[in-house]
Amino acid sequence: MNRRMILYMPLQILKAEAFLLLLPACVSLIYGEKSAFGFLICSAGMLALSFPLAHFLKPKDRVIYAKEGFVIVALSWIFMSAFGALPFVISGEIPSYIDALFETASGFSTTGASIVTDLGSMSHGMLFWRSFTHWLGGMGILVFLMALTNTSDRPIHIMRAEMPGPVVGKIVPRAKDTAKILYLLYLGLTVAEAVCLLIGGLDLFESLVYAFGTAGTGGFGLRADSLVGYSTFVQWVITVFMFLFGINFNLYYLFFVRRAGDVVRNRELWTYVGIAAAATVLIYVNTYPLTQNAAVTLKDASFQTAAILTTTGFASVDFNLWPQLSKNILFILMFIGGCAGSTAGGFKISRLMILCKVIRREVVKLLHPRSVKVIRMEGKKVDEAVIHNTCSYLAVYCLCIFIVFFLLSFDAFDLETSFTATVSCFNNIGPAFGAAGPMEGYAAFSGFSKLVLTAAMLLGRLEVFPILLAVSPDTWIKK
Amino acid sequence: MNRRMILYMPLQILKAEAFLLLLPACVSLIYGEKSAFGFLICSAGMLALSFPLAHFLKPKDRVIYAKEGFVIVALSWIFMSAFGALPFVISGEIPSYIDALFETASGFSTTGASIVTDLGSMSHGMLFWRSFTHWLGGMGILVFLMALTNTSDRPIHIMRAEMPGPVVGKIVPRAKDTAKILYLLYLGLTVAEAVCLLIGGLDLFESLVYAFGTAGTGGFGLRADSLVGYSTFVQWVITVFMFLFGINFNLYYLFFVRRAGDVVRNRELWTYVGIAAAATVLIYVNTYPLTQNAAVTLKDASFQTAAILTTTGFASVDFNLWPQLSKNILFILMFIGGCAGSTAGGFKISRLMILCKVIRREVVKLLHPRSVKVIRMEGKKVDEAVIHNTCSYLAVYCLCIFIVFFLLSFDAFDLETSFTATVSCFNNIGPAFGAAGPMEGYAAFSGFSKLVLTAAMLLGRLEVFPILLAVSPDTWIKK
Repeated sequence: MNRRMILYMPLQILKAEAFLLLLPACVSLIYGEKSAFGFLICSAGMLALSFPLAHFLKPKDRVIYAKEGFVIVALSWIFMSAFGALPFVISGEIPSYIDALFETASGFSTTGASIVTDLGSMSHGMLFWRSFTHWLGGMGILVFLMALTNTSDRPIHIMRAEMPGPVVGKIVPRAKDTAKILYLLYLGLTVAEAVCLLIGGLDLFESLVYAFGTAGTGGFGLRADSLVGYSTFVQWVITVFMFLFGINFNLYYLFFVRRAGDVVRNRELWTYVGIAAAATVLIYVNTYPLTQNAAVTLKDASFQTAAILTTTGFASVDFNLWPQLSKNILFILMFIGGCAGSTAGGFKISRLMILCKVIRREVVKLLHPRSVKVIRMEGKKVDEAVIHNTCSYLAVYCLCIFIVFFLLSFDAFDLETSFTATVSCFNNIGPAFGAAGPMEGYAAFSGFSKLVLTAAMLLGRLEVFPILLAVSPDTWIKK
Repeated sequence: MNRRMILYMPLQILKAEAFLLLLPACVSLIYGEKSAFGFLICSAGMLALSFPLAHFLKPKDRVIYAKEGFVIVALSWIFMSAFGALPFVISGEIPSYIDALFETASGFSTTGASIVTDLGSMSHGMLFWRSFTHWLGGMGILVFLMALTNTSDRPIHIMRAEMPGPVVGKIVPRAKDTAKILYLLYLGLTVAEAVCLLIGGLDLFESLVYAFGTAGTGGFGLRADSLVGYSTFVQWVITVFMFLFGINFNLYYLFFVRRAGDVVRNRELWTYVGIAAAATVLIYVNTYPLTQNAAVTLKDASFQTAAILTTTGFASVDFNLWPQLSKNILFILMFIGGCAGSTAGGFKISRLMILCKVIRREVVKLLHPRSVKVIRMEGKKVDEAVIHNTCSYLAVYCLCIFIVFFLLSFDAFDLETSFTATVSCFNNIGPAFGAAGPMEGYAAFSGFSKLVLTAAMLLGRLEVFPILLAVSPDTWIKK
């Protein structure tokens, strides 16, 4: 284990975060808000801490392997959240550190679960920072750093650990170039959405906030009732972009390099489209009696399907009040999540497909014990290591949900609230049902529960293993 | 595929069931009830159907492999439930066939979920049959037949398919002798419990009903409020025996052949004891304020822990009214289930242990990519095929729960009811929470939901794969 690197890299991330804090500081200054000082103080403090420490820990050997990649990613995200919470506390806009930590981890992990009860009282700078964390967390902040600098050798290991999904491949030979392309696509789509929202009548600030929230599949917004009060046009724009950000970004690259055929043949994409379409139709039929209006019902059914399936978590309607069938469909969608290689959380559609093939293989093996059945995805053989990893991810995924749910039970919410809050936070969605519904938020949870959910959000975003590695004694104790 | 055998064997099971129906017929006759005719008509009809058909289908080649074992078991259980439901309908005590099918499948699968709202109006014969299905289903009716007759070559394949858990080993070289030993242990423990219940003041009929219900880890009883009205002594007897029937039966054999050391070293046993103890302590602390009585609280906490963990589903108290923490603990226990090789349902503790080791191995593999880590259970290497099977079982287990839950959503119960009813039936427990609580039952569900839950109970009892194989086109279409 390259122990210097796994401490050095998170410090580099702190440096980067310190510089990134200047952006919301500018927003505060533009709006003449004193929250600018909060950002500037934090930024200065983080630089004062990270520069000498990083200098002291500077590693000679910058080669890293998969294990270092995982630990670096876990520590970086924990540092990022822990320090990113400070501006909220210093400015006094979220006085409790636990609350601020919850909000920041919710931001970076692109969950969008919020403990803020009065968004109207927050400064523009803080609201911008909150939403900007979504954008940074969506594609991964280490990938961002990788796209800009030469921070480590073999950066592919960091990319693999930070980007969700069962397989992370390079779309071009060099990992750094892959990171660049991904971030350019990400930036392009975000700008496109912001422009559409500007056309829809939002001001620049609102457009950026909602574009960040959609791009990272996060869900932070500007109002307590999420997007209920916005125009139909804005809601449709967000529906479309939520759906787009749930698609594997490699497909956009393939599309741009004129390999549209590969895009059309992509099974995961069609499964994703199929699940979204089926859920929308069922919810449409089930909720039509509530509105008696086809256009409104279709808008809300597709908005809510996209919002939950892509784990964004926006709401165009209080779906907590929907008939049970629709709520249950949303509950099932919570587990699925978007495509691998997108910014969406959840279990990921490609993993689900691999598991269905694993089940199918088990049946075939019982029928024909001597057969050797290879599992294929998108025309390629899936490596047994990937299958093993998918299975162990399912196991650790279930285990985490039960542990988080158990720890949340001390809060004495009803089963619907505790269980859906667990599932929602761990899958990085945001709103749940019951007392944690889309119009309620997480302010009512105890400090202990908020810490548990903070851990759940980070575990879910990083897909557990990086954090398991970071806390494993083997990582730290020399044998 | 030996197609004759997979039709012939279920017909043999029908024959056996026809003879077994004579037992409740005797009970009816002893109590002078006309329900005796229901049993006799059914028995005669089943014999008239199965004898000529079995004669016609008699296979020359009686060799079977794993695949035939799975399909035989699936078809036998479907036949058994479909025909075992007829006496209820013919006698008019459960007039609807769907209801009767639900009740019978719930009996054989040892679930114990009931649609009967007025148990007092049922005849002794029918109540006996209902509970006797638990006893037959607990250890497996094909295993029972195997212990008595020479019905097939290589009966181990049937045993493997019918007995739950990740690995089914022979405890003595011949599968038939293993089946005999298991059934003798099962019978011995059942008799021991019945005697204890007799000492506790129950009459012979009651003692048998509750002994059957406990032995099969089923949960059918004689009163709408389960065991609430019974004495503390009776409740403690049942607590102890529920716990005993949740232990791997191989351990009892080892104990009798004076290999107590192996029993003491059994990790699964200690994990089971540990989980039960931890749950009992937590529930005790959490529910003590309700009763302010240490003895009563301890009794109910341990009774309910054993009832849910072993998937029996009896109730000594309406746990639907417990504080949320205790309810959530029971909810988590619902998924776990008892030890492999016991009559308990659920996911099984040994599977859980294997999965924890799979997760651990994944972490070690990330740390030391070239290491080859063998997974061991009880000192023996676990075969990779068993690990694969455990992982695919987890996948198919999760998938089934979501599908059943989705289909149940059309009934518009709240999420707590639909989800816990799904989990409870699929894990063969019986009572759930909300509208399907221990004092409520399943009468309020629609016919469609009852059919879905019937399928869920059989899928859960047989651990899915036998039924998947039975409905797989490959099984039936010659290539």
